[in-house]
Amino acid sequence: MAQRKILLTIAYDGTDYFGWQKQPGLKTIQQTINQAASDLVGHKVHVHGASRTDAGVHALGQVGLMETETPIPTENFVRALNDRLPPDIAILAASEPPWNFDLIGAVKRKLYRYCIHTGPIRPVLDIRYCWHLPSLLDVEAMNEAARALVGRHDFKSFASAKDKRKDTVRTIFRCEVYRGVGPRQDYVYVEVEGKSFLHNMVRNIVGTLVEVGQGKRGPDQMASILQARDRTAAGQIAPPSGLCLMWIKYD
Amino acid sequence: MAQRKILLTIAYDGTDYFGWQKQPGLKTIQQTINQAASDLVGHKVHVHGASRTDAGVHALGQVGLMETETPIPTENFVRALNDRLPPDIAILAASEPPWNFDLIGAVKRKLYRYCIHTGPIRPVLDIRYCWHLPSLLDVEAMNEAARALVGRHDFKSFASAKDKRKDTVRTIFRCEVYRGVGPRQDYVYVEVEGKSFLHNMVRNIVGTLVEVGQGKRGPDQMASILQARDRTAAGQIAPPSGLCLMWIKYD
Repeated sequence: MAQRKILLTIAYDGTDYFGWQKQPGLKTIQQTINQAASDLVGHKVHVHGASRTDAGVHALGQVGLMETETPIPTENFVRALNDRLPPDIAILAASEPPWNFDLIGAVKRKLYRYCIHTGPIRPVLDIRYCWHLPSLLDVEAMNEAARALVGRHDFKSFASAKDKRKDTVRTIFRCEVYRGVGPRQDYVYVEVEGKSFLHNMVRNIVGTLVEVGQGKRGPDQMASILQARDRTAAGQIAPPSGLCLMWIKYD
Repeated sequence: MAQRKILLTIAYDGTDYFGWQKQPGLKTIQQTINQAASDLVGHKVHVHGASRTDAGVHALGQVGLMETETPIPTENFVRALNDRLPPDIAILAASEPPWNFDLIGAVKRKLYRYCIHTGPIRPVLDIRYCWHLPSLLDVEAMNEAARALVGRHDFKSFASAKDKRKDTVRTIFRCEVYRGVGPRQDYVYVEVEGKSFLHNMVRNIVGTLVEVGQGKRGPDQMASILQARDRTAAGQIAPPSGLCLMWIKYD
């Protein structure tokens, strides 16, 4: 059988993993899926990911790409892989992309959503999936600050010092903050849409927006934070538990 | 300072615990709260629970009662205990009941909610809090069966064989099955309201209702299952992950 490619849509609870990326001796999402896929097809498989999510970060729409020689029909991959994966990882869809499909280069948009619980008492059935921050947040001010990030900017101030990429210019298509309604009124969400992100960029943006929401910074400071091109100009990093990669769209 | 009683409303994710009840050498909710309360007040505290939830079962409204001589104001208990508890347990409220308050005898109603996810793929961010059962469920038939349980009946057929209590007559005030709406349309919920329950009674009811929903039993069989007074007459037990003690109401 000829080599073929399988594109996977992947969801996971990242709480108990050291992030997406394979690392020797550590339990990671990639390594766990590699193992399940290798067991299934009977040869060693390496699943490439479109996004490298950090330890503790979740995904509802990660995208992975693997090559295999197996004759297993594509439509059987979802169930067969899920049968071999732990409860906190699931394959949502499988398809065969064109042979020249570019997993990272062809990304058009990604959505990250960050969830903050602002109530006085931690939500025990949701604590893995949010940042519990018992605090009054001025969502209007956060939105004003968020708007200053939309567009093409140098985001070096929001990148981890560990991110050594020279080009720190990125484009944010949308950055919005809103409060939940009804039983979700204690929740504040930050949504950030872009094509690619620097390391820790979304969590550093959220941490900075929260300082605006708490009145520690004015929303008008965002422009000068961007100009500084210095990580220490921005706010503290938000914890990974609140972050979820919602989807990745391709051309 | 005189001895006083503190009534606690308690929420927890039961996934990582061997149930409510203190057991030597095992991590339980009760033991964890006893430890936090003892640390806080400086003497050994035993928190009694209104319900003994099983391993893996959750609560949003468990009620606990403790005695203490501490002068700490009641209103400070919530934050002070939460500071000493792990993320998956939280105290929602604290108050001083009348000295003769009867934690178990004065219960008027309890609500248990059971959550089933019926979609083909497990919901990774909710898998700790539901039973993933990829299955078509006839909610109408389940509701018809559920109605046959409402009222005062001998529920011996739905009790764990381990439950040695002689009196197996209980009253169910409400038993309803409904499907979620919108993004929750893959979910089916079973709500059971009663004053007290036999061991595993709600999970055995849910397991039996599911067999009705799958067409393995007719809804008209519930009467004969009750009459049998025999655990083997009812269906399989539902897993603990889907069950949550929602609230307990007092006179």
